[in-house]
Amino acid sequence: MVRALAFDVFGTVVDWRASLIGELEDFGKHQGVQRDWAKFADDWRAGYVPAMDLVRRGELPWTRLDDLHRRILDELLRGAAIEAADHDVNHLNRAWHRLNPWPDSVEGLYRLKERYVITTLSNGNVSLLTDMAKHAGLLWDCVLSAEIFGHYKPDREAYLGCAQILDVAPDELMLVAAHPSDLRAARAAGLRTAYVDRPLEWGQPGRYRVAFEPGEFDVTATDFLDLADKL
Amino acid sequence: MVRALAFDVFGTVVDWRASLIGELEDFGKHQGVQRDWAKFADDWRAGYVPAMDLVRRGELPWTRLDDLHRRILDELLRGAAIEAADHDVNHLNRAWHRLNPWPDSVEGLYRLKERYVITTLSNGNVSLLTDMAKHAGLLWDCVLSAEIFGHYKPDREAYLGCAQILDVAPDELMLVAAHPSDLRAARAAGLRTAYVDRPLEWGQPGRYRVAFEPGEFDVTATDFLDLADKL
Repeated sequence: MVRALAFDVFGTVVDWRASLIGELEDFGKHQGVQRDWAKFADDWRAGYVPAMDLVRRGELPWTRLDDLHRRILDELLRGAAIEAADHDVNHLNRAWHRLNPWPDSVEGLYRLKERYVITTLSNGNVSLLTDMAKHAGLLWDCVLSAEIFGHYKPDREAYLGCAQILDVAPDELMLVAAHPSDLRAARAAGLRTAYVDRPLEWGQPGRYRVAFEPGEFDVTATDFLDLADKL
Repeated sequence: MVRALAFDVFGTVVDWRASLIGELEDFGKHQGVQRDWAKFADDWRAGYVPAMDLVRRGELPWTRLDDLHRRILDELLRGAAIEAADHDVNHLNRAWHRLNPWPDSVEGLYRLKERYVITTLSNGNVSLLTDMAKHAGLLWDCVLSAEIFGHYKPDREAYLGCAQILDVAPDELMLVAAHPSDLRAARAAGLRTAYVDRPLEWGQPGRYRVAFEPGEFDVTATDFLDLADKL
């Protein structure tokens, strides 16, 4: 019996790409520069896994995601020959705190919250997730993060730490995510899994979508409303 | 400028004593035993500081509050010559997950949440606080606990850990509590402080109330609605 649902956040709950493009366009106007902001957003996101892997492999001490985002951003700005005031770059870096939800996220979480404990289980740091919840109206029961466990997903410790701190067995906890790799790591740690399709995460429908086997995850849903119907 | 409010929970947000007495009366009926449940509740609470101090002094390894509560409860049940099934004792122990709010708590938090990040900063473990929030309708922005920092209040690390994880300076964080000792430790760590009067925490008005100097805390309020007015 599932007692709690842990949600991946970037891409699963919020549309990071469209949100970032909007913020980058505002930044560009303010700075008086024009670039390919969609590509800039994709590159920013693409820097995330390698940066996080430095921490996961122990080549960097624990570094919160805000600071990893800032490292990547500084590099991208240098590459794009954009010089901006630290205050403006910091505001832009915190665009990740102001991501907008998918159209079904708020209502879907509201319905799921009636039957389950709902928590984030994100690589985003606690303050990022807390600000985002306020911005986007996400009514989490609690805000859990890799930062609390000292391990980024897909490290096993993040999934098991989440179950332990919620005082449930691993198989009483279900990870909800739009990414098979995250779900596979959760399943390997003993969690239940729900795949939610987010075909527009990378802009064009289905871009970078990762295939998976039928039956590989416990539940497959088209969005959070469909997930609430199925659970 | 205060950006976030961290709330002590037992006694400040919820009326642990009346809630426990109600749960103990139900337990007594179910077991067919009659005892002085008000005293039993007081004794249970009185065991909390000594048990926690064993952890704070390093005489016990980190132990979550649920397990400290259970140790105290087992001893009290032995002392009262009550033998109950483990399932029933466990249900009773989890009464701390089902504490009821003071009459102003839900509305007051709702108002404060509009202007500030509001979080728990309690010695209760995360699952306890999460269950309680669901039970009592407390809309926290995030659920922080001694468990996350590996230090029980009044250890300095709990207050500073809270500021750090929320990404605010210590003086941008205000502790809200009904207990001068908690507020004094927070102030010593550099936090701002708000005292909220809960004269009925121990039943009779003013029982065990601890005196403090005028102006000792940044704000003094009669309840959460008064606190919202004053902030």
